[in-house]
Order: sequence, then structure tokens, then C-alpha cells
Amino acid sequence: METGPNGVFAAVLTPFNEGLGPDHEGLVAHCRGLLVRGCDGLAVLGTTGEANSLDLEERLGILDALADAGIPGRTLMPGTGCCALPDTVALTRRALDAGAAGVLMLPPFYYKSVSDDGLFAAYSEVIERVGDTRLRVYLYHFPQMSAVPLSLDLIERLLTRYPDAIAGIKDSSGDLANMAAMVRAFPGLRVFSGADDLFLPLLNQGGAGCITALNNVASDISAKTLAAWRRGEAEKAEAGHEKLSALRRIVTSFPQIAALKEIMARRDKDNGWRTVRPPLVRLGAKQAEGLARALEDENFAP
Amino acid sequence: METGPNGVFAAVLTPFNEGLGPDHEGLVAHCRGLLVRGCDGLAVLGTTGEANSLDLEERLGILDALADAGIPGRTLMPGTGCCALPDTVALTRRALDAGAAGVLMLPPFYYKSVSDDGLFAAYSEVIERVGDTRLRVYLYHFPQMSAVPLSLDLIERLLTRYPDAIAGIKDSSGDLANMAAMVRAFPGLRVFSGADDLFLPLLNQGGAGCITALNNVASDISAKTLAAWRRGEAEKAEAGHEKLSALRRIVTSFPQIAALKEIMARRDKDNGWRTVRPPLVRLGAKQAEGLARALEDENFAP
Repeated sequence: METGPNGVFAAVLTPFNEGLGPDHEGLVAHCRGLLVRGCDGLAVLGTTGEANSLDLEERLGILDALADAGIPGRTLMPGTGCCALPDTVALTRRALDAGAAGVLMLPPFYYKSVSDDGLFAAYSEVIERVGDTRLRVYLYHFPQMSAVPLSLDLIERLLTRYPDAIAGIKDSSGDLANMAAMVRAFPGLRVFSGADDLFLPLLNQGGAGCITALNNVASDISAKTLAAWRRGEAEKAEAGHEKLSALRRIVTSFPQIAALKEIMARRDKDNGWRTVRPPLVRLGAKQAEGLARALEDENFAP
Repeated sequence: METGPNGVFAAVLTPFNEGLGPDHEGLVAHCRGLLVRGCDGLAVLGTTGEANSLDLEERLGILDALADAGIPGRTLMPGTGCCALPDTVALTRRALDAGAAGVLMLPPFYYKSVSDDGLFAAYSEVIERVGDTRLRVYLYHFPQMSAVPLSLDLIERLLTRYPDAIAGIKDSSGDLANMAAMVRAFPGLRVFSGADDLFLPLLNQGGAGCITALNNVASDISAKTLAAWRRGEAEKAEAGHEKLSALRRIVTSFPQIAALKEIMARRDKDNGWRTVRPPLVRLGAKQAEGLARALEDENFAP
């Protein structure tokens, strides 16, 4: 019996208005849509949500807007890991105020080649300063983007010191062996895959679910895949896995966040969805056509 | 005739108090000391200053404290480049309010493998939003730390569009060929080396100076090296270069920021200097002794 977040999570896109500010109304609508399209949870304010291009006030404002709109806290797993300790503490506190079931926490990611002692101190300082027994931290291992990997040694030290607060990890390394090693080494740690094509393989290894960008537009497929796997319908689950893997291959052959916003713009007939914050850029017209054709060839209708 | 920042800059360390907050008084005293020890300029709030571990309010507070203390704006080149556009704009504006001769601007550094179009848009948006003819941007190329390199193509596009605002670049790549290529390609662009052992070589190639962490404790040597070079005293300049290179080898064989803070703590007999913010850690006792011995062997008294 699962007692915490698990299953299908979207790494939720953030729509922007023309002035590049967050579009709260659009985000709330998107979140509601995801919850009816098979998402168990919403990893807002993560990499895919361009949260690292938002300042603290903008991120706090998004958390407030989601709470005010009645998005259930039990579905929320906001990203709260910033470079600066006080920012991480402030965001994490606000996420708890919004009732978030967990927070997804990048390590401070500017300084590279830092020691496990330093990363332990960073997470430790946040947990101590937040000082809230409700806190459930999901570590975020994404070496390709953060360039600050989280070692198994570090995770073990954190779990030993904070067995209640450290609840899980999102692994976006694309390395199934690493995810499986964590499942084996740390019973009770919820391990989520950041890659759609490792969702089913990780479930088979005892993982908790997936948190992916593709789930902004394909959460229904992920949900069906999970349901089939839970019922022991291996063939159906495998078919879902193949579909998700094919879609992922297409989307990641483009700059992924811009590609997903392009899909959203076409699905919702809303040009505003194409807006990204620098340093990202929207897809060019030719890229957008290429993406649309490739998705049609897969018979994909988001 | 030089008309803007040039010469010897320290990438200024930030002292912290016990609660890990910035020690304004200590920082002001350190800045004053650097200006009497041969520094032409103060690159506060950069990588060495652990600025990426400080939140926006802490950084703005430091700029205000320096201005209030009467640190001359013409000596200031604060780091202002953040992941989030609004933060970069706010910091850059405050730096101008403090009279800063220039600002040192990292690209947004969370998202990796971004396009030159995206980086152009990021810098462009900042320059347009700041909208101040006094703005002089020094780009910051530090691929080993930011993992977001700045290409010569990008610099050319920025210079073409913003010939007044783009004033120079700090190159911490350690690649003299790249620095020399920029000096040749972009007459008028002030190119600073982030590495002490490339200070003299870059001067010989037409560079503007150096901005280094070692200058927190060795700016007098850099200043003497520069003065000798300007007078055409090649042997003296070379001797300074050798000394700086030897000291750099020692300091960079330890975690550099912690090592420099250890040197400051011993020089000023002030334990507080050893405090770093996570994810950095202070030197262990054995490391500290090893550092002290290595510096003694070089007859170095900061």
C-alpha cells in the first residue's frame, strides 16, 4: 500500500504572458487539465517549468496562485532547489503552506565539483532552517543539466540523518542502473524516473513512478501504461512503453521545452503557449512543422 | 590612453557572519584594503565572492553597503548575471546606482546547450530593460563553472547591436588562444584574464588586465608586475609572472575559495574569514596546514 506520492507526474510547463511574466490563469487551467488527463501529481516549478528562469517572487506567486485556485496540495511536488540557501528555504516553506505533498530539490548548482560534505551541508541547512515535520524532500539528480550529481553515498548520509524528511528522488540521468541501485540500496525511498522510456523498466525494478516533461501532453498514455502494469497486463503495458518511448524520441530531437510548448499551442490554439524565457527560444517555423509531421506519423493527438 | 576599467582586479571574497549572512563591515574593510594594496578594481559579487549562493536581497544589500561606505564606483565591477532575468536586471540597476564603472555578467547558467540566439536574447533583454546609457557590460566566459560558454559569434552579434553597452569580457577558461582571438577580433573590447598565470601573457597580446581570486591576497604582486610591464622592464614583469603562477598553482591545488579564506583568516587573525556558504566547505585542519606550509616554502606573506 502506497502512502505517499507515486505514479504519473508531469514536470509542468509554465505559460508566460507577452511581457514574459508567468500566466497564472493559464497555469492553473493546465494543472487542472493534467489532473483529469491521468496525472497523479504535478511537479510544477521544475526544469521544464523554466523555474530556474523565474525570480523568487515569481515562484512564490505561482505557489500562491495554485493554492488559491484550489489545486490539491497532495498533488503538488514543486521544485524548490535554488543556488542560494535563503531562496530554497523560502520556497520550500511556501510549498508547505500550499500543502505540497513533497518538494523536488535540486542541489545548489552554480559551484561545480563540490564535495559530498558540501552538498550534505546544503541540504542539511535547508531541512534544519525549514524545521517542519511535514517536509518531504525529493532529491533531484540531473547531472546533464545541473552538472552537480548526487552520489549514493550522499543519499545514504542524508537518509541516515533525516529518515523522515528525505522521501525520494527524481533521477533524470537516464541511467536505469543508477535508479535500480537506489531502489535496492534504500528501501522506502521513492525513486522516480525523469525519462518516459525508463518509466516501465523502473516500475519493474520497484520504482515509484515518473516525473516527465512529455507528461504535459501524454499523461493519459502514461496513466494507461501504469494501470496495465498494476493489473499485470504485460503486453498492454509494453505497448504503452513503446508509445511513450517513440514520442520521447521525437520530442527530445528538438529543444524539448520549446517543442512541448509548440504542441500545447497547437492543441489549445493558443499562440501564447509558444512564449519561452531567454535563454530558451521558441521553435522556428520549419522545426515546428517537422515536429508536427513526426507526431502525426505516430498518430499522436495530444 | 585607457578610458575605462583596466589593470588589476580582485574577484573579491565575501566574509560571512556566524549565521552565514554577509558581513558588510568586513567586506568594506577588505575592499578598502585591496585598493591600497594595488587593486585598480573590485569585482565584488562574483564566483569567488560566493554571490551565486546569495539571494537577491543579500546582493542588493552588499551593493548598498559598498556605496554607503564610499567605495568609489569607478573601482566597482559587480557580478550581476543570474539565472532569472528579473534578478539580473534588478542587480544591474543597483550596480549603476552605486556608480559601478562596469558589471560582470554571467549568462543564465541553469539551462545548458542553449543556442547563441537564446543567449543573445538573454543579454539583449537585460540591456533593453536596464535601459541606461551608463551601462557597461563585461561578459563572463567561464565554461568550467557556468557550463554555458560564450562564443565569438555571440560576442560579435552583441557588439554589433550594443557597441556602447558591451565593454569587455572576463575569460576564465584558461585558454590564452581564446583571449588573444577576442583581442584581435574585437578592437576596443577589454579582455580580462581570470587566471593569474595568463595575466602577463594576455597583456602582451593586448589584453586589459586580470580579475582573479588570488588578488584577494596577492594584488600587490600583480600591481608590481603590471607596473614593470608598463615601464618595459621585461625581466621584472617576468619575475612577477613566475611568482603569481607559483602561488596560483598552490591555491588551486585546494578548493580555491576556502583556501583564500583560510589565508585571510591567518593574515587577519580572524576565524570568521573561514566561514563559507554551503555547498562550499572550509579547509580541514590538515589541508590548512598543507596550504600554509606550501605558501611558506614560496616565502609568501599575504
